[in-house]
Amino acid sequence: MNLAHLDEVRALFAELPDGDDAAAAEVAAREAHLIKPAGALGRLEELVGWLARWQGRAPPRLERPRVAVFAGNHGVAARGVSAYPAEVTQQMVRSCIAGGAAVNQICKLFDADLRVYEMALEKPTADFTAAPAMAEGECARAIAYGMMAVEPGIDVLCLGEMGIANTTAAAALCHALFGGTAEDWTGPGTGVSGAALARKRAAVAAGVARHRGACRDGLDVLRCLGGHELAAILGAVLAARMARIPVVLDGFATTAAAAIAWSMRPDALDHCAVGHRSSEPGHERLLRHLGKRAVLDLDLRLGEATGAVLALGALRAALACHTGMATFAEAGVSGVVD
Amino acid sequence: MNLAHLDEVRALFAELPDGDDAAAAEVAAREAHLIKPAGALGRLEELVGWLARWQGRAPPRLERPRVAVFAGNHGVAARGVSAYPAEVTQQMVRSCIAGGAAVNQICKLFDADLRVYEMALEKPTADFTAAPAMAEGECARAIAYGMMAVEPGIDVLCLGEMGIANTTAAAALCHALFGGTAEDWTGPGTGVSGAALARKRAAVAAGVARHRGACRDGLDVLRCLGGHELAAILGAVLAARMARIPVVLDGFATTAAAAIAWSMRPDALDHCAVGHRSSEPGHERLLRHLGKRAVLDLDLRLGEATGAVLALGALRAALACHTGMATFAEAGVSGVVD
Repeated sequence: MNLAHLDEVRALFAELPDGDDAAAAEVAAREAHLIKPAGALGRLEELVGWLARWQGRAPPRLERPRVAVFAGNHGVAARGVSAYPAEVTQQMVRSCIAGGAAVNQICKLFDADLRVYEMALEKPTADFTAAPAMAEGECARAIAYGMMAVEPGIDVLCLGEMGIANTTAAAALCHALFGGTAEDWTGPGTGVSGAALARKRAAVAAGVARHRGACRDGLDVLRCLGGHELAAILGAVLAARMARIPVVLDGFATTAAAAIAWSMRPDALDHCAVGHRSSEPGHERLLRHLGKRAVLDLDLRLGEATGAVLALGALRAALACHTGMATFAEAGVSGVVD
Repeated sequence: MNLAHLDEVRALFAELPDGDDAAAAEVAAREAHLIKPAGALGRLEELVGWLARWQGRAPPRLERPRVAVFAGNHGVAARGVSAYPAEVTQQMVRSCIAGGAAVNQICKLFDADLRVYEMALEKPTADFTAAPAMAEGECARAIAYGMMAVEPGIDVLCLGEMGIANTTAAAALCHALFGGTAEDWTGPGTGVSGAALARKRAAVAAGVARHRGACRDGLDVLRCLGGHELAAILGAVLAARMARIPVVLDGFATTAAAAIAWSMRPDALDHCAVGHRSSEPGHERLLRHLGKRAVLDLDLRLGEATGAVLALGALRAALACHTGMATFAEAGVSGVVD
């Protein structure tokens, strides 16, 4: 994929494939015969149907889960909006490659294939309070980079990010896309409060005010306020849709990146589940706008795809029940009393 | 354990051991050095501390998870309170032994050792709208039976139940223990509505009204309104506390059985987590009374310990992060900006 202009990305939104209703219906038909009251496995049943719909296969498969974590740096970090210095992004990438980050442990537990994509960390985006975060070609190339991370044959793609100051960028994306105030979308991130939180809110407000006039659509918002890793996540979301791979999104920054697709076409995220509800307050607000309910709610606020990979456990359990349970007929169990 | 009288159970409540503060503190000290913002793993961090406190060991272990499912029958089923006939309890036990139930699939996925305890299914409790559900010795023996299911060396005990009409018994326990109205506590269970739900509510109201005068404490409530499997769950909760084994409770019926212990001594459930929030409406209300927040919220309403075993995935991930992550010093990652 060699995208030079955002108009090439815009064109992709006309080509998004629909889900496979027949595969979803086949899953629902089997669910109705399994030895349990109808619907008693709740969201587990929904998740199996969702996997089948977007894989185009009944039953769906979860043998090859892939976890893609994109890392980028943000010029706005220089405004003192994070509890950590910008060099921590590089250090976190190194820890992840060495196997010491949280996401490594969860991937190992759930036997998921983790890839970390480092995006020119020595070249952060521009400070969006002073200039557009990215040039057009830079933004398009970052989207294309994310698209290339999607390989055929993956059964589910968990997406996450690392990037000091990227909850600031995510808050700016959400404020620009969904309105409200900078305060509505700006939270503690890695743990800022007081003066640092005030600086973070001011940066979000200033960035959105500065670029509002130049943004015709969500892709312009991404270019002006986003970041390399956020653009890559959008690209991975789009490429997964094309390749019939269901996606599990991590927390606030990842979901905000995906929301760019929603703003272009509201059904563009139908192949995406949200793995967990972050304790970053903007995430709940964002989920309400997207009409999504997260699978897990464990007060995580770490990023690195941790919440997306955790949700794999629930997906695997859902599929194991669907494929392994006996039917009423097989088990000789009585049905509902008339 | 050979309990003949409920007073012997009452005496146990004076002997409950406390948690191990030192083990919990050791876990907290390590968490503070792991490469993440403080508290960024949210409830996962809390769960590791909880496991350490009640195992009396830092780090805690999850190598030997045990799942105990108790099955019993209820005389009140004859009042038409369930969507299924009473013989389904026996059929569900058979399916579980044959490996075809939902809980079998989840236990296999999470490598948990499942035991199903069938409690004289051919001898249901008495219909509590007409008489006490159990005689005193019968109730004490059922509690003792549950205690015997707890073996030393188990790292965590997931508790669940099977029993047609036991959400009726659970609603009656909660109504008697916590007040409110029968409507507050009585929900669809396996899926009743309309006239059957009205019969279920009437049975709960009648049972509680009939036995209120005879109940001096929670154990009397259990004897008059409970069931064999619910008494066994209470016994397992108590024996696990004595043996320093943390417990994960399943949904409404299981938590209602455990609530008997809470009513005797509010700290008696400090070693218990609630695996999931059931979609049975009484469960949320019960959790508020107990001051517990469930680990998962997936709209399950199946019983069989399914929600408790699902939570094992989160516990395992929590422990994997705690033991496997690098520290700031090991990883050479910068700390918080001053």
